[in-house]
Amino acid sequence: MPDPFVAIGGDAAGLSAASKCKREDPDRDVIVFERGNWVSYAHCGTPYFVKGEVEHLTDLLSLSPDEAEERGIDLRRRHEVTAIDTGEQVVSVEGPDGRFDQPYGDLLIGTGAHAITGPIPGTDLEGVFSLHGLPDAAAIRAMLADPDSFTAADLGGDPYLDEERVARFGDMAPPETVAIVGGGYVGVEMAEAFDAHDVDVRVFQRDVDLIPAFGDAVADEVADALRENGVEVHLDTVVEALESEDGRVSGLTCRDGTTLDLDAVLVGIGIAPNVELVENTPIELGDSGAIRIDDYGRTSVENVYAAGDCAEMEHVVTGESDWVPLGLTANRAGRAIGATVAGDPTDVGGIAGTAMLKAFEMECGRSGIVDHERAREAGFDPISKTITAGSRSGYYPGAKETVVTLTADRETGRLIGGTIAGEDRAAVRIDTVATALEADLTVDEVERLDLGYAPPFSPVWDPVLVGAKVLAGEL
Amino acid sequence: MPDPFVAIGGDAAGLSAASKCKREDPDRDVIVFERGNWVSYAHCGTPYFVKGEVEHLTDLLSLSPDEAEERGIDLRRRHEVTAIDTGEQVVSVEGPDGRFDQPYGDLLIGTGAHAITGPIPGTDLEGVFSLHGLPDAAAIRAMLADPDSFTAADLGGDPYLDEERVARFGDMAPPETVAIVGGGYVGVEMAEAFDAHDVDVRVFQRDVDLIPAFGDAVADEVADALRENGVEVHLDTVVEALESEDGRVSGLTCRDGTTLDLDAVLVGIGIAPNVELVENTPIELGDSGAIRIDDYGRTSVENVYAAGDCAEMEHVVTGESDWVPLGLTANRAGRAIGATVAGDPTDVGGIAGTAMLKAFEMECGRSGIVDHERAREAGFDPISKTITAGSRSGYYPGAKETVVTLTADRETGRLIGGTIAGEDRAAVRIDTVATALEADLTVDEVERLDLGYAPPFSPVWDPVLVGAKVLAGEL
Repeated sequence: MPDPFVAIGGDAAGLSAASKCKREDPDRDVIVFERGNWVSYAHCGTPYFVKGEVEHLTDLLSLSPDEAEERGIDLRRRHEVTAIDTGEQVVSVEGPDGRFDQPYGDLLIGTGAHAITGPIPGTDLEGVFSLHGLPDAAAIRAMLADPDSFTAADLGGDPYLDEERVARFGDMAPPETVAIVGGGYVGVEMAEAFDAHDVDVRVFQRDVDLIPAFGDAVADEVADALRENGVEVHLDTVVEALESEDGRVSGLTCRDGTTLDLDAVLVGIGIAPNVELVENTPIELGDSGAIRIDDYGRTSVENVYAAGDCAEMEHVVTGESDWVPLGLTANRAGRAIGATVAGDPTDVGGIAGTAMLKAFEMECGRSGIVDHERAREAGFDPISKTITAGSRSGYYPGAKETVVTLTADRETGRLIGGTIAGEDRAAVRIDTVATALEADLTVDEVERLDLGYAPPFSPVWDPVLVGAKVLAGEL
Repeated sequence: MPDPFVAIGGDAAGLSAASKCKREDPDRDVIVFERGNWVSYAHCGTPYFVKGEVEHLTDLLSLSPDEAEERGIDLRRRHEVTAIDTGEQVVSVEGPDGRFDQPYGDLLIGTGAHAITGPIPGTDLEGVFSLHGLPDAAAIRAMLADPDSFTAADLGGDPYLDEERVARFGDMAPPETVAIVGGGYVGVEMAEAFDAHDVDVRVFQRDVDLIPAFGDAVADEVADALRENGVEVHLDTVVEALESEDGRVSGLTCRDGTTLDLDAVLVGIGIAPNVELVENTPIELGDSGAIRIDDYGRTSVENVYAAGDCAEMEHVVTGESDWVPLGLTANRAGRAIGATVAGDPTDVGGIAGTAMLKAFEMECGRSGIVDHERAREAGFDPISKTITAGSRSGYYPGAKETVVTLTADRETGRLIGGTIAGEDRAAVRIDTVATALEADLTVDEVERLDLGYAPPFSPVWDPVLVGAKVLAGEL
């Protein structure tokens, strides 16, 4: 009997791996250490919980602790791994009953990522928060509720709540004005969430574009969508300081002199991988600062794997190791590693950086390499074209303008990236681009794809085909 | 100056070719002969015109005769080509001003297809019709209108209407009960169209499934959608005869003894390519009975091309010549041929037989080889799995069950076909399958595709990925 398979982190990567390993090799001991209260929850769903479209925190659980136990997984919540000894194959753990060492046969590091708050003075004030995980989501929705009628039970998920924090946020008067510092995923999705609570929302973005990963054509559509819904968007604007009154945040000053009176600030300027645990080990990090892994999720140290938001993955377009923390990647890589440690070596797959985003009614998608500077770094000679095409046959009611940008390598004609935005089935069309990228198709080949056509869903020339047709004409 | 480029047929293939040729080589004479009144219209939109969602016939025109003229195309409507002399490179034409010969340098046969009515006695009765083209659509909508208030102007497109036919149908009392003979595209779409006019609709399908090209899993979803909307569906039922009263159709008898009193019958049992013109020429037909062409749309005779519903195309999965008449194929092949005859040889592309269908709220898609018998004929050892997955994260409002069937070749693991049905963004997801088919991906590769994920649009594992995961488990 080998030593157990141990996973650090009870979210997508850790529990996918644990479940798969236990299913393939039921006799193997599988232990998951999770330092928090929650396991296996949908990060991406938290803005919709804050918005109120998702009623209870527990709705966001993919797998409850009880279900994990039913699968035979030895799940230890509130257990923090504090050190890894890769020589002895042992991890040090601090749990509610003290500290102990746990030997492992195989180890998965699935420690995820954390929100960064950056160098803005005042981010430790009351009324300033990030959104990264269910505890944050619970606190923010508590704050948005009427303090006179709010009870923690409204949030669902009582057994897992940080009651003290929820009570503290629940006691606050709901904000009238919220500033969101950062216009990435969290910023855009939370603008919609706050707006649903009739809060006056201002987004401050340091970059000239919102969600820069989606390119400027999509960024413009998203900014328009926010503004049409009453959200004030400040681009190319650096927030320099937060001010307070009676200990609670009360104002904000930007480098350009803009000031704003406000009641709450959400800081959503990015995330960074949780890699403190590997700092004093021989486990190597990649250039991004996340853990470098091979095709099977193995780190540079034998029997140690990594997956999810703390790990790099091979990018299918560049062939290089890259850090693009997204939900499917964590789930898929975890599952593959679970199979591998159970004796069935399984490729974790590559990433194309495919992502989707909702901004009110606007649906967006992106995949591959969109940024020209990044493309040149990877050895490509990038060229992009942006087109606007209908989402349905023009005569069919409900057709919406859909903006597609495709990017190719001028020398080979290969498609290397694409983005899309539109209000009618736009986001899922990015999957055509993602599939083409993984298959190394040229723009000519994409132009000749036999995609579907039916007046209510797609025009004769799908917007992606129109994009390919126009870009091919430039090559 | 070479002889003109002549296109027979002024619909998708002919006018795409003419437009492209004229754009690339403005000095070339380009003549299009169209035997009917209408050119370049959206066949696939006709059910929605009958339904009333599309108001005017002219809304369905992609290119009006005036626009064609503006592009420098010599468009001759009501001109029927009656013979092709490939030796002399001349076509015989009958127009309003008599008969004449037209020499060609290059010739495109884009004659389209026609609806077949099959061997059912009584299909020539008043009140029995097909839907293939705008004149049929005009007649059917005229029939559905209240005779006391109907005027032909309601239909739009006065200059092109067959006034006598429209007047005759407009005088009929709107039907209370319509039988649709045939449960393919036309049958399913027209069931929805008639239902919108509060007509009692019965569909009679000879096969055990509706739309057999979409496979049985989709067929079941479509039958359910029709029935839930009050349409009576008779499967595995052969209509044997139509009865009449006072010259108008009044009843129907099936082989199993079922009888029905009715006021109108739509026959939609399929289409056949219009190839009469090539029967006495050396131009070769393929096994399907449609015209065989090569990668550049060339027939077996020099300087003669064919495209659209009258021509075969190379299937990307089988590599064989196949007849799958669909709109995008005609447009793309026409455009490629226009470029080729203008001096820029352009591949017409292959087909995957990708198609979409709407049945009330149900969205369906199919691509590739779905039928096992057809797969075996093409040399594959087919295996299929059907799964049901959510269209969004389960906790996000509006998630709908989506049914995916994927088919692979057991020996190579290659994906060879797929179908999908669901009420939330299901149809466009078939484009992932279409792209994978054209790239010859294996099911393992499809399982590892980095598709998009966002709670409002797609779950972590897109339904197509779930299908691939399950099918890969069987290989």
